Amino acid sequence: MIKSLGAKTLIYPVPVLGVGTYDRAGESNVVTASWGGICCSQPPCVAVSLRKATSSHANILAREAFTISIPSEEHVKQVDYFGLVSGRHAEKFSTAKLTPVKSKLVDAPYVKEFRLVLECKLVLVGEIGMHSQFVGEVIDAKADESIIGKGGAVDIKKLKPLVFTPDTQDYYGIGKYIAKVFSAGKGI
Amino acid sequence: MIKSLGAKTLIYPVPVLGVGTYDRAGESNVVTASWGGICCSQPPCVAVSLRKATSSHANILAREAFTISIPSEEHVKQVDYFGLVSGRHAEKFSTAKLTPVKSKLVDAPYVKEFRLVLECKLVLVGEIGMHSQFVGEVIDAKADESIIGKGGAVDIKKLKPLVFTPDTQDYYGIGKYIAKVFSAGKGI
Repeated sequence: MIKSLGAKTLIYPVPVLGVGTYDRAGESNVVTASWGGICCSQPPCVAVSLRKATSSHANILAREAFTISIPSEEHVKQVDYFGLVSGRHAEKFSTAKLTPVKSKLVDAPYVKEFRLVLECKLVLVGEIGMHSQFVGEVIDAKADESIIGKGGAVDIKKLKPLVFTPDTQDYYGIGKYIAKVFSAGKGI
Repeated sequence: MIKSLGAKTLIYPVPVLGVGTYDRAGESNVVTASWGGICCSQPPCVAVSLRKATSSHANILAREAFTISIPSEEHVKQVDYFGLVSGRHAEKFSTAKLTPVKSKLVDAPYVKEFRLVLECKLVLVGEIGMHSQFVGEVIDAKADESIIGKGGAVDIKKLKPLVFTPDTQDYYGIGKYIAKVFSAGKGI
């Protein structure tokens, strides 16, 4: 039996992303965002949405750049903390005992301890409502050697990214391998 | 040791979404998309990106509507098939033995057998490059009773959505509960 839940944003899974920026004084900031994802293959672009009230929103507009650092399960406390406090009132990196690294490619810092990083140049801003959507072109993706698997590709079972659940507001991990893309459906 | 992987779209996790539309003749179509996610809380909006070459791209522009039906692990063959063939050349629903249901709220069909559905009205189109990004306002979210857990919320462990891995092109499941959002970081 199907039931209406009302006008809710219920996509599963959604990611947990650490969005890195510099503020006006050049201080590193990082905020957690789950409203985001990949939005174009060529040029390679990702989207992340932030409320206008956040420091990070103004930082991205001013520097036209941001990074995305993807936390692993072991970073759940730190990335949750990044979403709890404002960059205006806390030196988030030092409080969380994490290290900002200045990108050589875009005007934004990333989180050294997170094992997958995207360095993004702002290419489009969509004003939707409570959130602005920032589309960034990925200038480079960087990964720690420890998450690289067969054929030089990122292995999700080594990265162990977090999954956010919009309706219950929990973090989950990644489960078992199920099937190969563009292959499982060939038998139909 | 951190390594450059080049300009790649490597967000983890990304979802597996069945995007439902009507074509010019009123036939139901559905295509698989993984470039998408939540993009605004108020109004509640989701984004999904499609290549201009797809039938679904033209359908969304013509009808200004689409649905998102979220497959469970058991639907992996069907949703993979939806990404393998063009709606121009196949009656995807009947071949996959799935049922299109006409939404009463927007001009698009959803997949009856998938347990979570969003009915979306097109509000914004972003031309990024190879993909156009369609932002849809969620007019209603519908869930099968079997995936509703405590407090009337969607339970990700009952839904069992698929995770897509961009670099290795695999499907994974959802793993273990890790922590509560806006709580795990309070100890820092």
